Amino acid sequence: MSVTKSEIRSGAYYDSVVLMQLQRNLLQLPGVEDAGVVMATPANLELLAESQLLQAEGKAAKPEDLLIVVKAVSAAKAEGALAQVDELLKRRSCAAATSSFRPRSLAGAVKALPDADWVSISVPGRYAAGVAREALELGKHVFLYSDNVSVEDEIGLKQQALQNSLLVMGPDCGTAIINGIGLGFANHVRQGPIGLVAASGTGLQSVTSAIHNLGGGVSQAIGTGGRDLKEAIGAASTLQGLTYLAADVATRVIVIVSKPPDAAVASKLLAAALGAGKPVVVCFLGFAAPAVRLHNLHFASGLEHAARIAVDLSQQRVARDSGSHSKAKPISGYLRGLFSGGTLASELFLGLNLFLSPLFSNVAIRSEQKVNDAHKSQAHTILDLGEDEFTVGRLHPMMDNDLRIRRLKQEAADPQVGLILLDVVLGEGAHPDPAAELAPAIAAARKARKELEFVALLVGTDEDPQDIQKQEEALAKAGATVYRDITQTLEHVVGRLLGAAEVQKSPAPFAQPLAVINVGVESFYDSQSAQGAQTIHVDWRPPASGDEDLMALLSKMRT
Amino acid sequence: MSVTKSEIRSGAYYDSVVLMQLQRNLLQLPGVEDAGVVMATPANLELLAESQLLQAEGKAAKPEDLLIVVKAVSAAKAEGALAQVDELLKRRSCAAATSSFRPRSLAGAVKALPDADWVSISVPGRYAAGVAREALELGKHVFLYSDNVSVEDEIGLKQQALQNSLLVMGPDCGTAIINGIGLGFANHVRQGPIGLVAASGTGLQSVTSAIHNLGGGVSQAIGTGGRDLKEAIGAASTLQGLTYLAADVATRVIVIVSKPPDAAVASKLLAAALGAGKPVVVCFLGFAAPAVRLHNLHFASGLEHAARIAVDLSQQRVARDSGSHSKAKPISGYLRGLFSGGTLASELFLGLNLFLSPLFSNVAIRSEQKVNDAHKSQAHTILDLGEDEFTVGRLHPMMDNDLRIRRLKQEAADPQVGLILLDVVLGEGAHPDPAAELAPAIAAARKARKELEFVALLVGTDEDPQDIQKQEEALAKAGATVYRDITQTLEHVVGRLLGAAEVQKSPAPFAQPLAVINVGVESFYDSQSAQGAQTIHVDWRPPASGDEDLMALLSKMRT
Repeated sequence: MSVTKSEIRSGAYYDSVVLMQLQRNLLQLPGVEDAGVVMATPANLELLAESQLLQAEGKAAKPEDLLIVVKAVSAAKAEGALAQVDELLKRRSCAAATSSFRPRSLAGAVKALPDADWVSISVPGRYAAGVAREALELGKHVFLYSDNVSVEDEIGLKQQALQNSLLVMGPDCGTAIINGIGLGFANHVRQGPIGLVAASGTGLQSVTSAIHNLGGGVSQAIGTGGRDLKEAIGAASTLQGLTYLAADVATRVIVIVSKPPDAAVASKLLAAALGAGKPVVVCFLGFAAPAVRLHNLHFASGLEHAARIAVDLSQQRVARDSGSHSKAKPISGYLRGLFSGGTLASELFLGLNLFLSPLFSNVAIRSEQKVNDAHKSQAHTILDLGEDEFTVGRLHPMMDNDLRIRRLKQEAADPQVGLILLDVVLGEGAHPDPAAELAPAIAAARKARKELEFVALLVGTDEDPQDIQKQEEALAKAGATVYRDITQTLEHVVGRLLGAAEVQKSPAPFAQPLAVINVGVESFYDSQSAQGAQTIHVDWRPPASGDEDLMALLSKMRT
Repeated sequence: MSVTKSEIRSGAYYDSVVLMQLQRNLLQLPGVEDAGVVMATPANLELLAESQLLQAEGKAAKPEDLLIVVKAVSAAKAEGALAQVDELLKRRSCAAATSSFRPRSLAGAVKALPDADWVSISVPGRYAAGVAREALELGKHVFLYSDNVSVEDEIGLKQQALQNSLLVMGPDCGTAIINGIGLGFANHVRQGPIGLVAASGTGLQSVTSAIHNLGGGVSQAIGTGGRDLKEAIGAASTLQGLTYLAADVATRVIVIVSKPPDAAVASKLLAAALGAGKPVVVCFLGFAAPAVRLHNLHFASGLEHAARIAVDLSQQRVARDSGSHSKAKPISGYLRGLFSGGTLASELFLGLNLFLSPLFSNVAIRSEQKVNDAHKSQAHTILDLGEDEFTVGRLHPMMDNDLRIRRLKQEAADPQVGLILLDVVLGEGAHPDPAAELAPAIAAARKARKELEFVALLVGTDEDPQDIQKQEEALAKAGATVYRDITQTLEHVVGRLLGAAEVQKSPAPFAQPLAVINVGVESFYDSQSAQGAQTIHVDWRPPASGDEDLMALLSKMRT
């Protein structure tokens, strides 16, 4: 019958690779059936329990304790295995010692490898911000693989970086490819004209791999950490990355990958992307694309789709819209959309959702975007005037323009309003000549306020009874910009309201070839080294953490 | 100075067209500056107030009262205008009377136009379900334009229809094109091979118009009402429409348009669409597309994109996937996705979101899809094993397979599990030979349960250090189906779990040419007539509604 024995080591720090290898080595000992070597967090204890490796002793361990459990064919075998732990740890440390010189501090590493302008950090989360701060103080860019770093620390680090023209990728940045060298987890991909910036680890790996597999190539792949597009961080690293890629002559196509960003951040980021002067493929996972393409922004429906669009753009070498939108000064006023068609209101709302912030509507799904009172617009507002609340005992606004014209006058009188957007839906059942009523209202409003812009989206066909050409002419003559196409309407509105302040183009301050100091997971050093990067591994240890015995043991492990 | 006068008529019923025309006629009287003729709902009173047309008298009106307000240059002019209301209403009724015979009941209309197999209903919401019920009892299909119909009535009507092989489009169905005739609001479009079914009014108008404008044509455009894809209704009309379009020889491409459906409904609807035997363009507004294409389903990013895809499919006449997915009996067990990559977990979760219901994950955004305890799967579950909760003091699962293999064994032992999905991410930093550890675990699980299926998504390139070909072979040899592409992985999983029960193909039971009985808004009758449909207008009145005087007045207005 199997016997399980445990051992707790308090206050010890070990590199996770060391723990994994200790567990493997224990499993190879004679008579050992299973083994667990984990920090005793609640989650890890639960996992041990699922493998029938948790006993009373283990349950008493604290999260910061190292818990070693061995299940063997006999008590003697289990105890024998545990007795070999120190020996096994030492064997490991000897193997590590055969490699090159290992400074014990970041400062020491900088002296040993003065060319290094990057520090790759993968120490446990609670120590990571401190190491990153030190790296920035030493004037180094930071690849911060570690997770469990607080938002406050992330904000502080990114501010510190910006002030010193340095880049912080992360925390929780799984991957990057800088000057052809992969940091963290990274695939071997062809070099080429596609530059990426991503708040997503395997997202970036999937897209870069797919680009390679489709025959394309990558200039730089910049990770930012998963939280970079949250409001608190404000896309600090993503905007920096975009700036570098916009300036980089080797980059002809830019790809942005992320889970959906917070609204205000999205607006800022997409405004910058509109001004990048290059095609930008936008892949916001889980976000409904507003269109296939708006100006130079190409919206992907997923990771591989993003790769395919980017490769197509990079290989076709066709003239691409790199900012054909109006260079005129954008409007500072608000958008007010007065729709007769509910689905059209929804489609325009969804299309403008990430561009304009805050945007309100009576067709919004998320409660924070619901307009408080549909009779009073707030900031940018899109209204479906065919909603039940407006139509009780009244004809639908496609048949009766009275309600819409009254609302149009009200909005036009509001000096905060800069652009009024209307749909005009033709066809059977609809008003026989909507422009005859809407055009005079538009003309009157424009006469009163010359700067007020009108856009009309005309839906219908050349066979509709209203004569679509005549409708278009009447609306245009009144001063409205008329489109028969939703995407063109979106493009116009985005261009006029968001503008496209040309993005500041700072060349990336990364020296070629890449040289890097590794602090944390040792196998990342091995990987950097295998890729031919100049690299050095810091024999890092946490700031004195209490347990003197274990610290001594740790010391022994270091050459 | 302007003077405003109001009049209230209690318990009166008027067609909304009559009210609009009364308002217009009042506005044309000498000295009248503005006028409002509305049912005195709170929303309408607010609108009157915004136009400075609301006085104390009007404020006292009840929602079922007709409120007539006139603003004129003098009290005498205002009172004079109000005094002419009866006269103006009569003028209107004389004009209407010049047209053809108008039966007073649905039964009478059926006698007068026995060929009619459709009834178009646009009476006020509170009367609409009753009229629809009567139409169904008379064996007629129903186009139900009216809104403000309860969900309970909608469920009852759709059940009644199904039992009698009839179709109910609506309530709140704005548009349809049946056998070339537009009902409600409808654009004039070319006839052709594209059949549509839509829970969206202007959505359907926009797509049909765009199809025409792109040179394509429409076979049938079936509206369903905006609530049809809600759980309570269960896509009753959409599924019926799909059945007709699948059977219709004139329809070569199908388009489905809707706001995002409820999850369980989506699953049922997409399973039917997978079995339609034709390409189906899916346009769920505001829903992130899971891919560009999965099997015969093409996902559009918006209304015009849906039209463009449909026209391309219909014109290219190329061989299209009309169900290339496995015809094997689908798995009845659950999916368990065990991911090392967080973004990959998200992408697969989002991709399967509408196909599998219920689906849980620790990467879900909506709270109802969050897995309760990441250590215990529920129903279909996708897990990111690289989430913080799993990685404290432990290497990332891309480096250390221990956690994943333990979980794999646990899932494989669950007899409810039918398919285990894994990602295997190669590249620098990752495990040097993941298949060496994963493949034996897969083989062992399959040995214990032959019916258990494994799918592995392999992410990487041919230049990665792990030898992607060798990895693929090892996983395949262990019995996993291996893909290097997310979309193929999605297709496989969807095909195996959702299956593709071939959709029942009932030819649409609509007689050619279309003949229709109109009840409600009179201008719809005019439109049907103008389109050359056989049509008859019912001189409908609400069931005796109390006010005898007004009923008498109404009576005078008829013929």
